[in-house]
Amino acid sequence: QGTRDHPPDQAALRDRLLAAVVACFKRHGAAAIDTPVLELRETLTGKYGEEAKLIYELQDQGGELLALRYDLTVPFARYLAMNKITNMKRYHVAKVYRRDNPAMTRGRYREFYQCDFDIAGQFDPMIPDAECLKIVHEILSDLQLGDFLIKVNDRRILNGVFAVCGIPESKFITTCSTVDKLDKIPWQDVKNEMVGEKGLSPEAADRIGEYVQLHGGLDLIERLLQDPKLSQNKLAKEGLGDMKLLFEYLTLFGITGKISFDLSLARGLDYYTGVIFEAVLLQQENDHVEEPVSVGSVAGGGRYDGLVGMFDPKGRKVPCVGVSIGIERIFSILEQRAKASGEKVRATETEVLVATPQKQLLAARLKLISELWDAGIKAEMFYKKDPKLLKQLQYCEDTGIPLAAIVGEQELTDGVVKLRDVATREEVRM
Amino acid sequence: QGTRDHPPDQAALRDRLLAAVVACFKRHGAAAIDTPVLELRETLTGKYGEEAKLIYELQDQGGELLALRYDLTVPFARYLAMNKITNMKRYHVAKVYRRDNPAMTRGRYREFYQCDFDIAGQFDPMIPDAECLKIVHEILSDLQLGDFLIKVNDRRILNGVFAVCGIPESKFITTCSTVDKLDKIPWQDVKNEMVGEKGLSPEAADRIGEYVQLHGGLDLIERLLQDPKLSQNKLAKEGLGDMKLLFEYLTLFGITGKISFDLSLARGLDYYTGVIFEAVLLQQENDHVEEPVSVGSVAGGGRYDGLVGMFDPKGRKVPCVGVSIGIERIFSILEQRAKASGEKVRATETEVLVATPQKQLLAARLKLISELWDAGIKAEMFYKKDPKLLKQLQYCEDTGIPLAAIVGEQELTDGVVKLRDVATREEVRM
Repeated sequence: QGTRDHPPDQAALRDRLLAAVVACFKRHGAAAIDTPVLELRETLTGKYGEEAKLIYELQDQGGELLALRYDLTVPFARYLAMNKITNMKRYHVAKVYRRDNPAMTRGRYREFYQCDFDIAGQFDPMIPDAECLKIVHEILSDLQLGDFLIKVNDRRILNGVFAVCGIPESKFITTCSTVDKLDKIPWQDVKNEMVGEKGLSPEAADRIGEYVQLHGGLDLIERLLQDPKLSQNKLAKEGLGDMKLLFEYLTLFGITGKISFDLSLARGLDYYTGVIFEAVLLQQENDHVEEPVSVGSVAGGGRYDGLVGMFDPKGRKVPCVGVSIGIERIFSILEQRAKASGEKVRATETEVLVATPQKQLLAARLKLISELWDAGIKAEMFYKKDPKLLKQLQYCEDTGIPLAAIVGEQELTDGVVKLRDVATREEVRM
Repeated sequence: QGTRDHPPDQAALRDRLLAAVVACFKRHGAAAIDTPVLELRETLTGKYGEEAKLIYELQDQGGELLALRYDLTVPFARYLAMNKITNMKRYHVAKVYRRDNPAMTRGRYREFYQCDFDIAGQFDPMIPDAECLKIVHEILSDLQLGDFLIKVNDRRILNGVFAVCGIPESKFITTCSTVDKLDKIPWQDVKNEMVGEKGLSPEAADRIGEYVQLHGGLDLIERLLQDPKLSQNKLAKEGLGDMKLLFEYLTLFGITGKISFDLSLARGLDYYTGVIFEAVLLQQENDHVEEPVSVGSVAGGGRYDGLVGMFDPKGRKVPCVGVSIGIERIFSILEQRAKASGEKVRATETEVLVATPQKQLLAARLKLISELWDAGIKAEMFYKKDPKLLKQLQYCEDTGIPLAAIVGEQELTDGVVKLRDVATREEVRM
């Protein structure tokens, strides 16, 4: 449940999508790493907040207690700490596992690919953070998914908001995960959860509400920097100062048109410490389709300066910022688009079918195809002793093989091959 | 335990190796499929004989009982049956899981990649089987791993041997797995296991010994076809007839020089029903190295005509033959070779570093690198406001970046960029 096989046409489409994403990561100078699907259970413990219950655990069959990785970020942090690496730009494309309620039509699975790009190291503020947003912008533009918006916020600003609204620090994280629902449910429901479930006072919730419903650009940042309450809060001031710097860099990249500073963005995970962001598609391409696929967020990420230190025996910190591309949701869109357009995805790359028009010519086919393979040419033949020529040509048409190399008795005698263009039916002897 | 992280240089080397294998699979017209790492436990039950105890099971956290896939063959058979596919040529490159005793220096891990190519469908005998052997031959030749030998046998011949030696059918499979050890331990030890553990009579074991120590080519096949006992056995006769046909096709492919018909080859898995084969490297390239990596088999496979039927509610059979490339062992060899040669594997593909020689030029770098990225050029820059030029050029040399695009105050004024060839130190303004 919640997993799926990819048949050839889907696997081919997905390979192309992953290749486009990896091309962008490489363009930004990232190196690939690979880590096991299995992690020690203790590695994953305490990293995912309320979502920890969704971790798949392996049966205790003796030896170490294991679990399946929940994302690629925690294994990356574990890898950095284990190898004492303090500076690295890496990408990782691999499957992760979550015992979530699957919603397959929306592209939500229990086994799914993540495509992560992260920058680890102590650098001048906001330069790597800006690059992560540039990457999201490049990938979503390259894939031509339609209009999109990248929402940006900072955990320090949110925490500053909570502080000036009188929330005790012990409730920051849990309040964060309630605020994060503002893109799915109305403010009144969020407020009810804050008061009813999280135990905030209605007044405190209302004060939070005044802030977290704000969104804008540089103007909003400037306004909040002047806000009498927020400007008194050290964390919020730091966050707002960095947000201003970030917008400066994004302006140089020429991408602020698709960026929104949005105080309702909170992101669920515990480990974020600074900038956070999330990209959403603004509308479906196929608005005329009766039930457009609702896809939600297609990329997300942020800064997590404390995670690596959790794996270091001496607690040495390595600041990190990274982005994860929601490849499964994008894949759902591309798949639906391919279906709607009736476009046929070729699942193989075969260039030529080695065919015979008469019987008793299997040996000739085997010899010729062997020569083609050895010359690096992608070739197929029928696994029958005496196939009919018509069936062989039909197979080319069905599977999109452009050429047929035909050896008949005459060709054998003359020492030639008849090469047929399947679409035009033109033939040359060579 | 038994798993590992791949750091960037290893990941880059492995990606190149996998690409070479996949290129061969595509050359033979195979399509990719992808199946989940998780399978239902019941899917894996009863498919792996004595090795079943090595299957990783997931904890029962409610819902279905799951396990990690043990190979890619059983999931492929499950996929064919589930989708009622009777004809398919597919490849699959993915990780599989075995709770085995790891032997990391020999390339044996608990999590490792498999690269499988399989042909499913009812065809004329031995044509797809011959293609599988051709593929092994092509891949091992392409990778230049040194001399190799592909051992071939047929389960029907082995079963025929067991029958004419007086072994009850109930003991065929277990006797098979003992015979399979003949490449690692001497005949006397194999015999002792047959008699002591498997309960065969010493005389029967000796009769088996006379057959399973034979190996050769077409001459041996002919001789056994005349063998007074074996020629009376229907299964053996069928197997030998097909083996003769196989050698005919392999002769047309021109690869019999590296093929040996070897009656000691048995292969451990339950599901084989016909031709079986295994490729071994004959010697290590670096014989002068003090402790050459012992790698054993680097590819194996065979025919399994009954497996798909086990997943079909009506037991409908789909004959299959396939090959699995032992990529981890090959990777161990290539890695050791790269180390020995001191060859440096570049882990990134960055073409140009955007650099500045003076302070206060971060904005210029951000603008230029953004243009380069948008033009599809692989570019990096330092995440510092004012890095030293020497450090920037040193980084290019260390990581193999061939070009530096330098913007200084003069270049900004003139509206040009200084492009420096890192190796030759030549510079052009453009």
